[in-house]
Amino acid sequence: MSSTSPPAGNALIGQSGGPTCVINQSLVGLIETCVASPQVKRVLGAVHGIRGILEDRLIDVGKESRETLEAVAKTPCAALRSVRKKPTREECERVLEAFQRHDVRYFFYIGGNDSAETAHILNEVAVAANYDVRLFHVPKTIDNDLRVTDHCPGYGSAAKFVASAFMGDNQDNRSLPGIKIDVVMGRHAGWLTAASALARTAPDDGPHLIYLPERDFTIDGFLGDVDACFKKHGRCLVAVSEGIHGPGGELILKSGEVDSHGNVQLSGSGALGDFLAAKVKEGLGQDLRVRADTFGYLQRSFAGYASEVDAHEAREVGRRAARAATEGEAPHGSVFIQRHGAVGEYEASFELTELQNVAKETRDMEEGFLAGTNDVDPSFLDYVRPLVGELPVAARLSDFPL
Amino acid sequence: MSSTSPPAGNALIGQSGGPTCVINQSLVGLIETCVASPQVKRVLGAVHGIRGILEDRLIDVGKESRETLEAVAKTPCAALRSVRKKPTREECERVLEAFQRHDVRYFFYIGGNDSAETAHILNEVAVAANYDVRLFHVPKTIDNDLRVTDHCPGYGSAAKFVASAFMGDNQDNRSLPGIKIDVVMGRHAGWLTAASALARTAPDDGPHLIYLPERDFTIDGFLGDVDACFKKHGRCLVAVSEGIHGPGGELILKSGEVDSHGNVQLSGSGALGDFLAAKVKEGLGQDLRVRADTFGYLQRSFAGYASEVDAHEAREVGRRAARAATEGEAPHGSVFIQRHGAVGEYEASFELTELQNVAKETRDMEEGFLAGTNDVDPSFLDYVRPLVGELPVAARLSDFPL
Repeated sequence: MSSTSPPAGNALIGQSGGPTCVINQSLVGLIETCVASPQVKRVLGAVHGIRGILEDRLIDVGKESRETLEAVAKTPCAALRSVRKKPTREECERVLEAFQRHDVRYFFYIGGNDSAETAHILNEVAVAANYDVRLFHVPKTIDNDLRVTDHCPGYGSAAKFVASAFMGDNQDNRSLPGIKIDVVMGRHAGWLTAASALARTAPDDGPHLIYLPERDFTIDGFLGDVDACFKKHGRCLVAVSEGIHGPGGELILKSGEVDSHGNVQLSGSGALGDFLAAKVKEGLGQDLRVRADTFGYLQRSFAGYASEVDAHEAREVGRRAARAATEGEAPHGSVFIQRHGAVGEYEASFELTELQNVAKETRDMEEGFLAGTNDVDPSFLDYVRPLVGELPVAARLSDFPL
Repeated sequence: MSSTSPPAGNALIGQSGGPTCVINQSLVGLIETCVASPQVKRVLGAVHGIRGILEDRLIDVGKESRETLEAVAKTPCAALRSVRKKPTREECERVLEAFQRHDVRYFFYIGGNDSAETAHILNEVAVAANYDVRLFHVPKTIDNDLRVTDHCPGYGSAAKFVASAFMGDNQDNRSLPGIKIDVVMGRHAGWLTAASALARTAPDDGPHLIYLPERDFTIDGFLGDVDACFKKHGRCLVAVSEGIHGPGGELILKSGEVDSHGNVQLSGSGALGDFLAAKVKEGLGQDLRVRADTFGYLQRSFAGYASEVDAHEAREVGRRAARAATEGEAPHGSVFIQRHGAVGEYEASFELTELQNVAKETRDMEEGFLAGTNDVDPSFLDYVRPLVGELPVAARLSDFPL
């Protein structure tokens, strides 16, 4: 990407896709940097992302006080409000008209791979119309499945929530033993479910079994695993990704058996967990104490429990995108995080890549991070630990005999 | 309760029922106070409560280091491990034999109303056998439904979790509007579900509807409420107690499982939330974006997020029970929390009451804490706020027009 002279004009920011706990850090990083830029006249926000642009629902975020911005940065979910919408070509042309009408010369879209794709298409439309607008994608997703970047802003906080939830649930399962199934978000990739492994401190701590979409899942294999674990530990704590699928790629809940309401949506329903719990009872015994929880939207929105590293990095990717755009480092692009330093010496830098390198496709967990069919490799813990930061205390009595 | 000369002998501690995030604070309060008492020779723990006594699974908790105890105090759920068991009369007699065999002169049972009942029955058996053992109940329950006490240790932390979850989910629902139903624990009483109201800061913040077991629930009433809310706000966030029931007292949805106290299994399944979500789609439109989350066991076990006040008070009730017993203040009893001070000037003291005042029956929310059929009164917020402590930041952009 060659350096180009940055135009003078307004900046516009939008948020897209599922929220995270730190997505507003990126928003504030963008606002504060744009406000400080001599190239930027006004800093605007699109309410509900691309839909807000199409409906002309724009607000002036450059007028916000420092105090409001810092409070918004700490608040989970999209302060600009979000949208799940892939614009058509015709809509992209209307977006460009809106850019021209409002003298928008910088557009920042905070989101996942779909948002990078939207920015990429908008860039093509702008180039074709010979309108100079600098289009940048700012990454966020609790799924951690964007390409190029070492990890995604939003993931560390969600991973901290999942790890803390499993730390507690492991103690709960040890207090009142049984078989417990916890369903974790992650449609295509197992990154977030894998973070449950951070909950283990003692050798017999759960999660005892971790099922990821990177591996094929079968009910028979699952029941065999649970049975062996229950015989060994007298209890079994299971982490299951909502995206698990059979050898043919069919989602488990789609493979002939659905819940009583016919739902196949993944989040916002307890169906997969309840389905697996019922299978355990059918297969291993109706008298077993089997419970299922689906962590649901709390993983991406729970207030007051963000990872500090994640919050910091989310702010930085916003700042980096705004600097890159307004200082003319590139006409368009996406920010990614590069990891430096050996294990235990985590450092990160914030770099630029082309929009099409991040758009469309997602990234599964590397093979080296997986272990067998139901666990993660210790190298994954080295990967994820610095992103999550300090975890709660989990201690046991020594069980001294009389 | 008259003062009696305390015997010399061993102390035994058990934990019972569903865990809380601060139940080990009470355990450590008991251990440290018993260890320091000249009356107490050894401090023992029963693994899995009354079942551990029957199976002679006792451990020496008096030998634990201060460091281990402080770490255990911060760890959620029952470090001694728990049990859901109502002993028969014959089992109570075997428990008494175990007391005699191990020279147990002080028995502390940390639990809810069922545990108080167990302690009460054990006391009758001991009196009949003329064996001097001081039996104390130490309260805990996230349900907050014990009689006599202003509130229960464990409740404040669970309420903090629920409030923070709703703060986040309200932002989530505002980011991506739709109808969202969150199911909260609370078998008989609505205390925990009511704490969702702490999540509101702006006038249009959710939860917009709060359904408690203290009020009869009808699907028609529910659908009418949701419809009106959705028309007004373009979204609707609903807090539902797992214990909601129709005008005849029948639970809206329940599983077939019942424990030895006759309690029906409510948690550990997403069934109620999914059922209500399906009803909304059937009644108000299949195209509506409707989601349901069931917060599940995270409410009682999530690590690292306890209320500071709750943690402190849980420690104090343990200390108070151990002092009352070993200093001969009473031969048996249960500790309760008395609230002092005006609104905004919260103070608490720790008092004694008779076992039978806490045993068996539970306590619903007072009528004055309820508002209409789907909300709480502001006086409830004054009641619950000091128990939860500081909540996360929730801020909005000002939405300045262009």
